[in-house]
Amino acid sequence: MNKPGISRYPVPRLEELPDDVRARMLEVQEKAGFIPNVFVALARRPDEFRAFFAYHDALMLRESGLTKAEREMIVVAVAGANDCLYCFVAHGAILRIYAKNPLVADQVGVNYRKADITPRQRAMLAFALKVAERSGEIDESDYKALREHGFDDEDIWDIGNISAFFCLSNRMANLIGLRPNDEFYLLGRVPKQK
Amino acid sequence: MNKPGISRYPVPRLEELPDDVRARMLEVQEKAGFIPNVFVALARRPDEFRAFFAYHDALMLRESGLTKAEREMIVVAVAGANDCLYCFVAHGAILRIYAKNPLVADQVGVNYRKADITPRQRAMLAFALKVAERSGEIDESDYKALREHGFDDEDIWDIGNISAFFCLSNRMANLIGLRPNDEFYLLGRVPKQK
Amino acid sequence: MNKPGISRYPVPRLEELPDDVRARMLEVQEKAGFIPNVFVALARRPDEFRAFFAYHDALMLRESGLTKAEREMIVVAVAGANDCLYCFVAHGAILRIYAKNPLVADQVGVNYRKADITPRQRAMLAFALKVAERSGEIDESDYKALREHGFDDEDIWDIGNISAFFCLSNRMANLIGLRPNDEFYLLGRVPKQK
Amino acid sequence: MNKPGISRYPVPRLEELPDDVRARMLEVQEKAGFIPNVFVALARRPDEFRAFFAYHDALMLRESGLTKAEREMIVVAVAGANDCLYCFVAHGAILRIYAKNPLVADQVGVNYRKADITPRQRAMLAFALKVAERSGEIDESDYKALREHGFDDEDIWDIGNISAFFCLSNRMANLIGLRPNDEFYLLGRVPKQK
Amino acid sequence: MNKPGISRYPVPRLEELPDDVRARMLEVQEKAGFIPNVFVALARRPDEFRAFFAYHDALMLRESGLTKAEREMIVVAVAGANDCLYCFVAHGAILRIYAKNPLVADQVGVNYRKADITPRQRAMLAFALKVAERSGEIDESDYKALREHGFDDEDIWDIGNISAFFCLSNRMANLIGLRPNDEFYLLGRVPKQK
Amino acid sequence: MNKPGISRYPVPRLEELPDDVRARMLEVQEKAGFIPNVFVALARRPDEFRAFFAYHDALMLRESGLTKAEREMIVVAVAGANDCLYCFVAHGAILRIYAKNPLVADQVGVNYRKADITPRQRAMLAFALKVAERSGEIDESDYKALREHGFDDEDIWDIGNISAFFCLSNRMANLIGLRPNDEFYLLGRVPKQK
Repeated sequence: MNKPGISRYPVPRLEELPDDVRARMLEVQEKAGFIPNVFVALARRPDEFRAFFAYHDALMLRESGLTKAEREMIVVAVAGANDCLYCFVAHGAILRIYAKNPLVADQVGVNYRKADITPRQRAMLAFALKVAERSGEIDESDYKALREHGFDDEDIWDIGNISAFFCLSNRMANLIGLRPNDEFYLLGRVPKQK
Repeated sequence: MNKPGISRYPVPRLEELPDDVRARMLEVQEKAGFIPNVFVALARRPDEFRAFFAYHDALMLRESGLTKAEREMIVVAVAGANDCLYCFVAHGAILRIYAKNPLVADQVGVNYRKADITPRQRAMLAFALKVAERSGEIDESDYKALREHGFDDEDIWDIGNISAFFCLSNRMANLIGLRPNDEFYLLGRVPKQK
Repeated sequence: MNKPGISRYPVPRLEELPDDVRARMLEVQEKAGFIPNVFVALARRPDEFRAFFAYHDALMLRESGLTKAEREMIVVAVAGANDCLYCFVAHGAILRIYAKNPLVADQVGVNYRKADITPRQRAMLAFALKVAERSGEIDESDYKALREHGFDDEDIWDIGNISAFFCLSNRMANLIGLRPNDEFYLLGRVPKQK
Repeated sequence: MNKPGISRYPVPRLEELPDDVRARMLEVQEKAGFIPNVFVALARRPDEFRAFFAYHDALMLRESGLTKAEREMIVVAVAGANDCLYCFVAHGAILRIYAKNPLVADQVGVNYRKADITPRQRAMLAFALKVAERSGEIDESDYKALREHGFDDEDIWDIGNISAFFCLSNRMANLIGLRPNDEFYLLGRVPKQK
Repeated sequence: MNKPGISRYPVPRLEELPDDVRARMLEVQEKAGFIPNVFVALARRPDEFRAFFAYHDALMLRESGLTKAEREMIVVAVAGANDCLYCFVAHGAILRIYAKNPLVADQVGVNYRKADITPRQRAMLAFALKVAERSGEIDESDYKALREHGFDDEDIWDIGNISAFFCLSNRMANLIGLRPNDEFYLLGRVPKQK
Repeated sequence: MNKPGISRYPVPRLEELPDDVRARMLEVQEKAGFIPNVFVALARRPDEFRAFFAYHDALMLRESGLTKAEREMIVVAVAGANDCLYCFVAHGAILRIYAKNPLVADQVGVNYRKADITPRQRAMLAFALKVAERSGEIDESDYKALREHGFDDEDIWDIGNISAFFCLSNRMANLIGLRPNDEFYLLGRVPKQK
């Protein structure tokens, strides 16, 4: 068996990190119960870490015409297109939780055309994948198709920028061989017990 | 929400089916606790049903230099390459169970290069995907590479034929919009409790 | 010159084979005047042989809205797409005979858009190639396009399943380096003389 | 049935043509027994006609380290890669005649890796297809590989230029829907009778 | 630094060349102030040189519904698609001069969809790239789309044949590693000073 | 003529912007003599603007084993691969200036294999393009190849992250139809006069 570590690159210990980076990691640990490996692996370069998560938050936490679950659908579909195991598994978990749906992440990640989603969401994912795979071919007709599903131009920017950001993220994860935390695989698949 | 049925095509009722077809379905229900939708969807054409499962069994149940888990790895990796939700999810479950490993199916389905598998298994999957995606380019060097990992010519036939058979299966599932049973998504992810 | 044998794998002698397998081979020899190499090469694994030809017969011999020539057109077009010499040549011969047309096999195998076929047949082949090459993208619009040419849902299943089955067959032929019998190249090209 | 004419474009009558163009066509008719449609279809623009056939002759008739059959192998393999029915069929005939081999054209056109040719010829065709499909990636290693098979730099120029010229020719044939003469399909398949 | 010469192949001296070839080169030198490397590199095979430039002139100098700048747009867009540095740079210069526009060559070469051109020109380039990249898929609908932009059938032949000819030219340039003259990079970028 | 504006989206006026965003734009204007359109177009969403340029600076301004010119080579090569006009033109200018070489940007953007660069730089660009186009296939052999050219693991992270960041940037530019400032096309092409 050839079980890789978190990353091809050495990972820093928490106590070596700048305060703000460590604080961010402890905050997510507090909330999730563990530190997702993307934090651990990127922390070795604090400036890139800060920019990466600032970009992430600017897109994923802002007020938007897209629900949080819809934004995660984009992430998972793009991860599938980019063969990125980390984002497929980690954001699959987040999507299942936001959508309160244990099936949708695998559906969207493998083939969004077969997913239990609305036609509007299918149009959103078709566009997100065009941004990921053939962005040079985007033209006015793409905007028109999305507007017909009720998306406005800010929504379209959101869809496109989330896709573009995770094209960066997927490539970094593939570059460094980023390993998803084992916890992610099961999260959101079993209804919480009281 | 646009929740599709089992298949684009009408599915027969059990009592309408020829005895051998129905028996096969009841047998798998007995064993799995439910009837996988591939049986339900293909039963409407009994001759094709019989040939399909005879082919499946000939490959997946025979004595082989490949373990059953390894054969399912091929199925899941090929399903990923063919964007086939049904086989990704259903055979992902079977793979988790055979391998007693809750992580390996997602790993192999999204990107086998990042999976917790042996170099020999990685070579096996590289070849299976070449059969799936560029079979016209197979030549002696592919055979040589596999032999260096200890596969003999019967093993290579097995790898190639499993990949080829699921290229058929994936296309049929995509053609008819075959929906994985909800049960498959969770199977093999949680250790059995005593 | 590097003239390969029938297959990379050893081929069994007729007398070694199970009775039903040998009977099938003698039957086709009786009819065609020679045993097509696909029978010879696959016979070494009788269970797979039986399932393969049972599947073939279920699709190619059944009552269908597609003529036998149309079914062979699908086979030849898919063989071209999969760079499969065996099926291009062997089924090209069968197509020429069924269609009583010495030109159509090369036309359909190289570029069906330039073939002397009907618009309905062109739509059929466009769909067959989508099943072969991009089955994950099949959606309702494909069904709609075929229905506009008068195909019903059983016909569409036939087109798709024939394409899918020969995607299996082409991959096996490429895997084992299956060589077309020399006889196939000329069959159906010259009008029978009285 | 939708039997197309020789070309999407009107074809001139022989008597309308400039003398040299008509002479060239009568010469080939004298030799072949019919006028290949590429002459008929291109004659409507005499300057392009003259340049096209001057280029053709400069490559295909010159003294070369490649035999005439080998040059036609390149043409047929490139036609297959470009889905060009005209060159596949017409040059397939010429290849069969030059090689005195009724099988080699279909083999080389569908998948040269399975053809009854020498390793040197296989290397030649691999390079010709790289020129046709990924010429931007050609580098010193390609030259080195060909030299190891005994090709010198003039031979390599020949291989590359023939491939490049037929990339032009295939595109023109596809552009205008050029139809192969029916005669080509059978030529070279049946040994001449005395 | 690894500064390649004009070509992988030796280039002849002017005085070694046949008179007509040398005359052609001196004529272009007279006009441009330097001899473009394509002349220098191809002159070593005079018959191919003559046919190449005869073909070029037949297309690029003839009366046509396309302006000379439009024809050069096709050349530059096709060079971009074929990763051909020589034609991108050399014909980029010619395009800037003909169009009296210092920006259009880079725009058209990198992504014609973003270029400052008319919708008619965009349709022209879309078709030229289809000829370059997927000519086997050309059908009546492509002709129809161009006619809607006011192109007649002779214009369509021009677009297609220019694209096809530069598919040949790009492959030859890539084959021999043809280096653009340094002069081309700047030509047409700075308004002429009086 | 269809001359697009800076972006599909409205661009803010400087005085509407948060102080830090405006300050950044004035600073670059001070230095370059104009405000590159990427600043103007992204400023409408200040949080994304800040993260984008923080990421950019973290990669492009840090101490690194790659020179600034080498980093810009990566940007331009990736822009070519992604059909991104803005980065091809704008970073082409920056590359010419950093490298003090008026030719290298077009060379690297169209086909780095033909560029006047070192073998080490060619290996760097080959890897950058693999990150851009097939990051899921990165494995240990890629690291090994770069180490043989003297790159250490921090350099490899830099190459990969720059490629990944500009995959984001190119997609955003394509999404919004970002127009390069006219000034960029000529910058660095003419030696500064005293």
